[in-house]
Amino acid sequence: MNKLWLNCHAATMAGGHYSIIEDAALVTRAERIEWIGPRAELPAGDYAETIDLGGAWLTPGLIDCHTHLVFGGDRSGEFEQRLEGVSYAEIAKAGGGIASTVRATRTASEDELFASAQQRLRSLLHDGVTTVEIKSGYGLDLASERKMLRVIRRLGESLPVTVQATCLAAHALPPEYAERSDAYIDLVCSEILPTLAAEGLVDAVDAFCEHLAFSPAQVERVFQRAGELGLPVKLHAEQLSSLHGSSLAARYGALSADHLEFMDEADAQAMAAAGSVAVLLPGAFYFLRETQLPPMQVLREHGVAMAIASDLNPGTSPALSVRLMMNMACTLFRMTPEEALAGVTLHAAKALGLADSHGSLEVGKVADFVAWDIARPAELAYWLGGELHKRVIRHGEEQIDV
Amino acid sequence: MNKLWLNCHAATMAGGHYSIIEDAALVTRAERIEWIGPRAELPAGDYAETIDLGGAWLTPGLIDCHTHLVFGGDRSGEFEQRLEGVSYAEIAKAGGGIASTVRATRTASEDELFASAQQRLRSLLHDGVTTVEIKSGYGLDLASERKMLRVIRRLGESLPVTVQATCLAAHALPPEYAERSDAYIDLVCSEILPTLAAEGLVDAVDAFCEHLAFSPAQVERVFQRAGELGLPVKLHAEQLSSLHGSSLAARYGALSADHLEFMDEADAQAMAAAGSVAVLLPGAFYFLRETQLPPMQVLREHGVAMAIASDLNPGTSPALSVRLMMNMACTLFRMTPEEALAGVTLHAAKALGLADSHGSLEVGKVADFVAWDIARPAELAYWLGGELHKRVIRHGEEQIDV
Ligand SMILES: [Zn+2]
Ligand SMILES: [Zn+2]
Repeated sequence: MNKLWLNCHAATMAGGHYSIIEDAALVTRAERIEWIGPRAELPAGDYAETIDLGGAWLTPGLIDCHTHLVFGGDRSGEFEQRLEGVSYAEIAKAGGGIASTVRATRTASEDELFASAQQRLRSLLHDGVTTVEIKSGYGLDLASERKMLRVIRRLGESLPVTVQATCLAAHALPPEYAERSDAYIDLVCSEILPTLAAEGLVDAVDAFCEHLAFSPAQVERVFQRAGELGLPVKLHAEQLSSLHGSSLAARYGALSADHLEFMDEADAQAMAAAGSVAVLLPGAFYFLRETQLPPMQVLREHGVAMAIASDLNPGTSPALSVRLMMNMACTLFRMTPEEALAGVTLHAAKALGLADSHGSLEVGKVADFVAWDIARPAELAYWLGGELHKRVIRHGEEQIDV
Repeated sequence: MNKLWLNCHAATMAGGHYSIIEDAALVTRAERIEWIGPRAELPAGDYAETIDLGGAWLTPGLIDCHTHLVFGGDRSGEFEQRLEGVSYAEIAKAGGGIASTVRATRTASEDELFASAQQRLRSLLHDGVTTVEIKSGYGLDLASERKMLRVIRRLGESLPVTVQATCLAAHALPPEYAERSDAYIDLVCSEILPTLAAEGLVDAVDAFCEHLAFSPAQVERVFQRAGELGLPVKLHAEQLSSLHGSSLAARYGALSADHLEFMDEADAQAMAAAGSVAVLLPGAFYFLRETQLPPMQVLREHGVAMAIASDLNPGTSPALSVRLMMNMACTLFRMTPEEALAGVTLHAAKALGLADSHGSLEVGKVADFVAWDIARPAELAYWLGGELHKRVIRHGEEQIDV
């Protein structure tokens, strides 16, 4: 059954640009886009249904390509303590920081994790998201990482959203491996990754390359194992210092390297050559009050595709809106609204290995799109928070009550 | 008819602090709070209705005490041009900036202004706002200022929100008065203010004291006229430079002085003595990438009550969420979550002259409150954007579909 969507303009995002079609028409058949173009060129045909979009602007469904939205507890208490003058050292000594999230995640039941994650995911969907990546990485042992990844799969089955699951077992050193990080990487490579991959719970493998997490040599072992398992890789790199994790990621053909505030020009060249996407995370930059900006001009000059994501996580970016991240990318990183929209559509799809099927309004791609009640696409990056009137269409079906 | 609200905790905000009641009970009669306290102390009595709040946290309804949410057009195109490298000078030469908003507001019909403002106001309400201040100031002639203020009154009659209308005719110099700012202030004092006040459209009078707007001497003329008309005053002061507008405002017993990044200690002393509220606007600070922080420690030391508001306006703060402003107040200004919540409840009520009836959960006050599905009040300032599950109660009635 096909449907004709009329009375709209489209920012198709083909090629990573607005690629605007004014007075557009869109034909969907089942979950795919069968035709898109100017209404005047619409081929004659029979349509089972015609939907009037009331002059809305169409964009691809938004894609949040980097989140940690499954976790136990929250860290609002710690946020408050910090602002009341308690030091990081005191909070850490009292068992706070990521250790508290690992504890709460390990002790939470699968149903508890699902319930809280579902609420956060609904907030993203309500903002126009139709595809999301979700990472494990607060379990840090086989059973707890499995629990997180099972919750991630269940979210994709329960809510109207395409979910990509990333195993981030190499996120932090679990307390039982204190001072034995190589032994933990052994566990990740010999047990956690192969077991969870065999269970079909993993779409990609990620790690955190930083002085306070894992070294480039340790990350390389994780990447090698991922390669043996046939899984694509991604990397948290260059957030707080320059270890050239992004160059390492590029060497392994990574889908993306993420954060990147401290990357240099050689890193950018390597990423461009490998086709790895630079995933920028302005929410964490804002929340941590960082001052080192990602090297935007260098990324542009070398033609590295730039994505933007929420990094939704309890410690450094409790961000529940991708549109807000677009504004922060513009306001803080000086991206243009067009770059920001590409960053949450086509380039985000590329960062997930889904660019052939998602991220732009083109014939043959999945019919995930949003019809926004706005005067021009720049409004998506312009407004700060709140809600914009919209209709969300996923797999060719309007989502009435996301 | 009275109602008993049970199974909740309350951050009553009495005295501008959390003033928490765990396992609270609240009794409302018609639109007022008749009793609030620990459930264990609830007096025996008959209740027409008992509502189970499911363990939610109650706070007073949020109050956005500084907005410019009625305007024609929008400035997202200009936002995009700036990020694409067009200079302010070029945009101004092409008729952009506030001049474009004045043009669009003057040419818009009352119904058009109402429709677009209603959509923005609904976004604030959806975030938990039950009282809002809205300023005129894009009309800048009698008929256009009247049109804006009539729209503001109509918003209060049409939506479930208490609206305070502020006449900001002294916002900017209209083009027809270029180089004749004293003559424009004559018009404001002799015609615009008295006429609109007589029509019952004005609850308070505001002005913009800045080099690019009006001088302290001109503001003083406006304040004198407001005093003759029996209207309280407020002032946009010390946003971009130090003209001691906040001291001037205090001298006139202003409800508030707003922005205040460049205020000094003498200004703070004057405000404290006058009981004027410091309304901080972190959205504009963020959006304009300002670096001069308001003097938080000085304000605290002198005991100046601090409110937070969206400043919702098309040019410098297109902010559609008060919760996001709470986060920005914490993240950027280092307010505590408790100060931030006081800033959008009791202190915001004070900035509107409504502290006797609004802004805290106390016996005799209006029963405007929100029941949030959160674990602790700090979550209101913690999350970035998106939505939190909540129930909004206004005048003792639950709002089902705000
Ligand atoms: Zn991350
Ligand atoms: Zn203002």
